[in-house]
Amino acid sequence: MPPLKPPYFTAIFSSQRTQTTRCEEASISYEEMADRMARLAEESDGFLGMESYRDADGRGVTISYWRTLDAIRKWGQDPRHLEAQSTGQKIWYEQYSLRIARVESETVWQRDKV
Amino acid sequence: MPPLKPPYFTAIFSSQRTQTTRCEEASISYEEMADRMARLAEESDGFLGMESYRDADGRGVTISYWRTLDAIRKWGQDPRHLEAQSTGQKIWYEQYSLRIARVESETVWQRDKV
Repeated sequence: MPPLKPPYFTAIFSSQRTQTTRCEEASISYEEMADRMARLAEESDGFLGMESYRDADGRGVTISYWRTLDAIRKWGQDPRHLEAQSTGQKIWYEQYSLRIARVESETVWQRDKV
Repeated sequence: MPPLKPPYFTAIFSSQRTQTTRCEEASISYEEMADRMARLAEESDGFLGMESYRDADGRGVTISYWRTLDAIRKWGQDPRHLEAQSTGQKIWYEQYSLRIARVESETVWQRDKV
């Protein structure tokens, strides 16, 4: 992700997955839906970048970066995203938290390529 | 991590590790230093919580939560933390970014225990 100029905004979505790894109950798998939502975010106005991790215990985080709060709001209310959120509550998540924050400063360090 | 009441602050430290997994050049291993820094953070004034992930490619993030910006500043300037940062630049990291952000809202969802 290229350096960004603050202020900008971030949505920190921390979650604990259920044990459900198959798609018996959903029409698509969690991984497929996560990919689809990432592509939808990338196409959304004001999207700046995203990073996502999950550990072996099913705990994970997706951090997305946005130009404005309004861009985050619109992304959260996209009907395709609302459908994913609904399926997430039905099947994929034990619990989650969503934090919206205003990025005040950014420092980037890179090893010299010698 | 228990629910927190905004506003509070977060330090998002995203990094790419080097291939260095041994401790030939450092007196302690990366994992040992990471544990030590996590304990140091937990003992610091204004610390609220922390979550940390790293994937198989060595990309990862540590998100720490703090009551005030000043608490983050003090944590960043603790001599033991400065030493860890210095070793990180010498040995452990290819690149990193540190974002400081003000958390404006938090939503927590939990599956009903039926």
